[in-house]
Amino acid sequence: MLYVVGTGSGSRGGMTIDAEQAILNSDLIVGYTKYVELLREHFPEKKYFSTGMKQERERVEAALAEAADKTVSLICSGDPQLYGMAGLAFELSANYPGTEIKVIAGVTAAFSGGAVLGSPLTHDFAVISLSDLLTPMEKIRKRLECAAECDLTIVLYNPSSKSRADYLKNACDIILKYRPGDTVCGYVKNIGRDGEESRILTLAELRDTPVDMFTTVYVGNSETKIIGGKMITPRGYKNV
Amino acid sequence: MLYVVGTGSGSRGGMTIDAEQAILNSDLIVGYTKYVELLREHFPEKKYFSTGMKQERERVEAALAEAADKTVSLICSGDPQLYGMAGLAFELSANYPGTEIKVIAGVTAAFSGGAVLGSPLTHDFAVISLSDLLTPMEKIRKRLECAAECDLTIVLYNPSSKSRADYLKNACDIILKYRPGDTVCGYVKNIGRDGEESRILTLAELRDTPVDMFTTVYVGNSETKIIGGKMITPRGYKNV
Repeated sequence: MLYVVGTGSGSRGGMTIDAEQAILNSDLIVGYTKYVELLREHFPEKKYFSTGMKQERERVEAALAEAADKTVSLICSGDPQLYGMAGLAFELSANYPGTEIKVIAGVTAAFSGGAVLGSPLTHDFAVISLSDLLTPMEKIRKRLECAAECDLTIVLYNPSSKSRADYLKNACDIILKYRPGDTVCGYVKNIGRDGEESRILTLAELRDTPVDMFTTVYVGNSETKIIGGKMITPRGYKNV
Repeated sequence: MLYVVGTGSGSRGGMTIDAEQAILNSDLIVGYTKYVELLREHFPEKKYFSTGMKQERERVEAALAEAADKTVSLICSGDPQLYGMAGLAFELSANYPGTEIKVIAGVTAAFSGGAVLGSPLTHDFAVISLSDLLTPMEKIRKRLECAAECDLTIVLYNPSSKSRADYLKNACDIILKYRPGDTVCGYVKNIGRDGEESRILTLAELRDTPVDMFTTVYVGNSETKIIGGKMITPRGYKNV
């Protein structure tokens, strides 16, 4: 039995009860090195196997192989679908017939970070990753254009890395073609973990603010405002 | 103290540990009649106050007023931001100075339903509500156009109601201008609750399928496929 489990933002309380149960019931927990370390603090008695970054395929293969005769939890931060391992587990499962896969949803960073900022995601929104590792940059640019044009609140994942230092600036420049510089934006770093940090700022300021890969970025829609220091998108449009 | 709490899809296990704690620590639980009934099954010993549909303002005002000298949980299904009460609580909070508001994120239907279908939300996506109660229909149409044009996976909330029987059909017609009729789609009804039902079908079939307001609808991107009866969006694009 393979559970593909979303562990939420990193605190034990951000995990669902189903996720906790799956982990407690598993013979083996498989995950990315960093997230296995975080989980080990909450469940020190469990047995773990971890692989490093860009070793997703090896990680999923290992989890599927062990799940043939054990109960295994393949853990992902946030939700296991979104930029996670659930899809890959199903894609590789043909080589492991008879292994049942169950996806256990988790709270993705868009929502756990949004709760820190206030309520930026009250209304329609898009999530776009700025990583071009597996997606052509042309496609990412097009998505930013479209999401900005139709006034969706935009959540940016993987906004930066050492090799992609200017990606957030470039993304803001695309969005600035459609939205004013004073559009309310925000970001949260290390959501639910030690060193959690958040800031609310304008789109113009965001353009020139360096963020790291552990940061989730929010660009408000035309109605998003600041209320009592929180980033709030209303439930609708006043002129309806 | 006011907690604005996302209770997830409806099963107790789909709730986060933080959400459960907030509810257990509250003197009063405030929510929409239907969700209060569901929660009462899990926490029969708690005190509840409920209001009906379209009485969101009354509900939030009641929660804020009680929170002046009590610990109150204002509950929302899924996540409390998305089409929920968190934004409104902050908007109305100026009238209740001194009341602290804390948002406790939950698993929204996009993810709990996605886990039932497989992994439709592996990559960039948009969430769009088809309800035009608070949003001009022109804006909803534009968002469907844009999301379809840039190949985002699309999740549709509030796809139908008695007075909006043809809204899903109209939405599919817009998406069909950009995506072929054999695009992999899916829907899940009553996620995590009695009567849960899901189906994977083509966009052309979806267009002519009646769904109700308790259904969440998924339109895959150009890479979404069916693997072992599950709806799977890959992590990226093969031609990168």
